[in-house]
Amino acid sequence: MMSAGFRARHLAIVGMGLMGGSLALALRDHADHITGVDHDQRARRFALERGLVDCATDDLYAGVNRADVVVLAAPVRVIVEMLKMRIGSYLRSNTLVIDIGSTKQDIVDAMANLPIGVHAVGGHPMTGKENGGIEESDVSLYRDRPFVLCPSRRTTPAAKLHALAFVETLGALPIEMAAQRHDQIVAGISHLPYLLSATLMATIANEAERDKAYWELAAGGFRDTSRLAASNVTMMGDILSTNTQAVATLLAQFRMQLAMLETLLIAGDDQRLGESLEPIRQARKEWARNYENRR
Amino acid sequence: MMSAGFRARHLAIVGMGLMGGSLALALRDHADHITGVDHDQRARRFALERGLVDCATDDLYAGVNRADVVVLAAPVRVIVEMLKMRIGSYLRSNTLVIDIGSTKQDIVDAMANLPIGVHAVGGHPMTGKENGGIEESDVSLYRDRPFVLCPSRRTTPAAKLHALAFVETLGALPIEMAAQRHDQIVAGISHLPYLLSATLMATIANEAERDKAYWELAAGGFRDTSRLAASNVTMMGDILSTNTQAVATLLAQFRMQLAMLETLLIAGDDQRLGESLEPIRQARKEWARNYENRR
Repeated sequence: MMSAGFRARHLAIVGMGLMGGSLALALRDHADHITGVDHDQRARRFALERGLVDCATDDLYAGVNRADVVVLAAPVRVIVEMLKMRIGSYLRSNTLVIDIGSTKQDIVDAMANLPIGVHAVGGHPMTGKENGGIEESDVSLYRDRPFVLCPSRRTTPAAKLHALAFVETLGALPIEMAAQRHDQIVAGISHLPYLLSATLMATIANEAERDKAYWELAAGGFRDTSRLAASNVTMMGDILSTNTQAVATLLAQFRMQLAMLETLLIAGDDQRLGESLEPIRQARKEWARNYENRR
Repeated sequence: MMSAGFRARHLAIVGMGLMGGSLALALRDHADHITGVDHDQRARRFALERGLVDCATDDLYAGVNRADVVVLAAPVRVIVEMLKMRIGSYLRSNTLVIDIGSTKQDIVDAMANLPIGVHAVGGHPMTGKENGGIEESDVSLYRDRPFVLCPSRRTTPAAKLHALAFVETLGALPIEMAAQRHDQIVAGISHLPYLLSATLMATIANEAERDKAYWELAAGGFRDTSRLAASNVTMMGDILSTNTQAVATLLAQFRMQLAMLETLLIAGDDQRLGESLEPIRQARKEWARNYENRR
């Protein structure tokens, strides 16, 4: 889709971590003025000193009151809290609010609390880094990565076009879908993998109390499978607690699939076990080929 | 431990895949003559043309009959089969047999079938690559990686010293342990992760039949967690079927850990969920730091 290009007079980014900092870098030439809002003094100083923002504050009102575009780049529950409690009364009419939280239903529901006249679209860029923090900011963090947009009751047709232009200016690939569908998909591709990774790590840590050699012999396969267990716990707790139903449903599916494989394994039915594992292997290979080609 | 250095007059490598080919490269200057044994004509030709071996055959008798050192680098059940059925009568007295199969109990048990006078040590190098095949052979595949040695009833003190010298010549780090302990550890760090990865992939493939967007949005976290699902199914089937008991025991532990986390999640007990996840995160970070430092 072609769009008119994104432009803000006054862009406010609430939450100056890896995601907010990278946004500031990528939108530097598309906003006359950028304000960064964060409680953390170190993050504010970094943002100012590196020229990511023109102004940095820990005062939400001062940060967003003059903005025509506000990006909420905080953890999910902080975003929900802001939308419900305070931020609506701070905003001018016709301001566009976009959030980049990792679950969408609770957030787009909370957007209905914004005053009529404020426009709002839910967003979730499928990108990140193993280590967060504004110091890791990267102008190309969003480039060529899917960026989900979820309509809310405050999404006017004009707001949607504006959000599309915003996503395209980041170099990301916009995908529009309902919040519920988004949350179900990320439960599968992100939240379930995190829980499995953490549970694997907990299981081995338990075993390793008796025998330290687990840690000595663990190698590349374990490294990859356990990587998500190192994710920030506050962030993941927020995500899981705002997507509990979808995660629980997928966990039930996972357990069923695991029980089927385990039954064949314990029965010594090598042929059927192989026949079950081979299509899984092929599906993984096909997905990985497409994924690497897209990058 | 210092050792006298490894030397073979006639080294036979049975199984010319990634592992066998890399062995041949790493031991080229430590053997007067190397024979490669494989059923696959393409593997034999590659090994000959690249100078990995002096001679290539699909005849096990011809391949090992003159050898003073034989490395069995085939899938686990092929190794067990060879040890039980044929290879003992083909070998000269005082030959050293080392295998590099991924599970050890069945193999060291089968080594008891070798004639007295043939020496044998079980081995498992903790190395590999995502894509196998002799074309991927790499002279440094074994370098600085743990190489487990498991004694069998055919392991004399001299055989053990010889095997240690072999491991050190590869540049690997020898770790001696009983086969049962080895199999329990690899169940945790390798076989359980594989099953989880395959089950995750099966679960998502199932969901994606209704909605292709799962594949579009899946990114780095899913890639890492699902990577092992692409492993060779014949190899993994062999491994799982020779380590069923240890894998089943760990699966039970895993399910218990998962149930504990799920209970906190569904109860909405964010504080205790966070308190459970934080030490897991720290254990992962600590292991990863040590692992990267060792490499």
